[in-house]
Amino acid sequence: MPKVAEILIARGEGFVTEVTGEVMLLFGGFAGDRHFSLTRASCSRTPWHPRGTPIANTRQISIVSVEECALVAAAMGVSRIYPSWLGANLATKNIAELSTLPPSTRIIFPSGATLFITEENVPCKHPGKVIAQEYGHPELAGEFVKAALHRRGLLALVEREGLINTDDRLRLVIPRRRAE
Amino acid sequence: MPKVAEILIARGEGFVTEVTGEVMLLFGGFAGDRHFSLTRASCSRTPWHPRGTPIANTRQISIVSVEECALVAAAMGVSRIYPSWLGANLATKNIAELSTLPPSTRIIFPSGATLFITEENVPCKHPGKVIAQEYGHPELAGEFVKAALHRRGLLALVEREGLINTDDRLRLVIPRRRAE
Repeated sequence: MPKVAEILIARGEGFVTEVTGEVMLLFGGFAGDRHFSLTRASCSRTPWHPRGTPIANTRQISIVSVEECALVAAAMGVSRIYPSWLGANLATKNIAELSTLPPSTRIIFPSGATLFITEENVPCKHPGKVIAQEYGHPELAGEFVKAALHRRGLLALVEREGLINTDDRLRLVIPRRRAE
Repeated sequence: MPKVAEILIARGEGFVTEVTGEVMLLFGGFAGDRHFSLTRASCSRTPWHPRGTPIANTRQISIVSVEECALVAAAMGVSRIYPSWLGANLATKNIAELSTLPPSTRIIFPSGATLFITEENVPCKHPGKVIAQEYGHPELAGEFVKAALHRRGLLALVEREGLINTDDRLRLVIPRRRAE
């Protein structure tokens, strides 16, 4: 049964997020999260727009799985990687290979609140720096991007508003795969 | 070179759209289009929500290709199917197999205006009724859904605002395919 392992929020200026018990999903993201907005400024993730251009925020929520975090930790030779170190907003458990879920998959919470998957998250360098600092091994900083490829989780926008809680059961609606 | 074949707008109450020369893309869709909105009421397309629930509008723009319209026409044994009959907002030319472009593909116009593909459009019954009426052959109504499967085009949201014009050249940014 897919479930919510952790809900996390970006309150301050840093990259890492803090675990919290419940949060309200609103159109635009997590209420109170630093990334909450229907639009955002274009960044290095969207190099086809000049930096700073207002664009639709299709990266409202960052989702990772505890299983993939464990795989990345093993690949980097460390005991554990916490979702907060990855700046995640939501950590799931019991979804095998979360990162392989296709865009337009819906993740539905018991309240009816729903996330719409926009795209897979491509690993960047920030989490490697956090992991290196946490373990006091600077050489780990450069290993994250390769270790986390296709294990970095997903990005989503809020399709339907509602409250979500730690330990919520999750229903997935996965789009039909095209017959090859 | 991928280009804009037609720009179409839904002005009134009906399903069909009207050809227009240019249009402003705004966050929420085409300025002046009946479907313009950042949110919409849940419908039969989103049966996992109660009908009428406010949800994010990830179906702002309907895109078809003139090449796929010709394939659907051939499959139905009619001479032509116009994008307006499908309720499309944008018809492209010179994009082979438009419907196979994956979600999160960006379609970028010369002004910088950009569409973000949210999902493939699954054929419904409405266009079949229009085509049957146009040709005066009621038996065509039931043939569209099968004939148009994986040729019905794509749905998009506006990633970046700007003016778009008929005959604009289009740049595609297609996400990296996962190594199998």
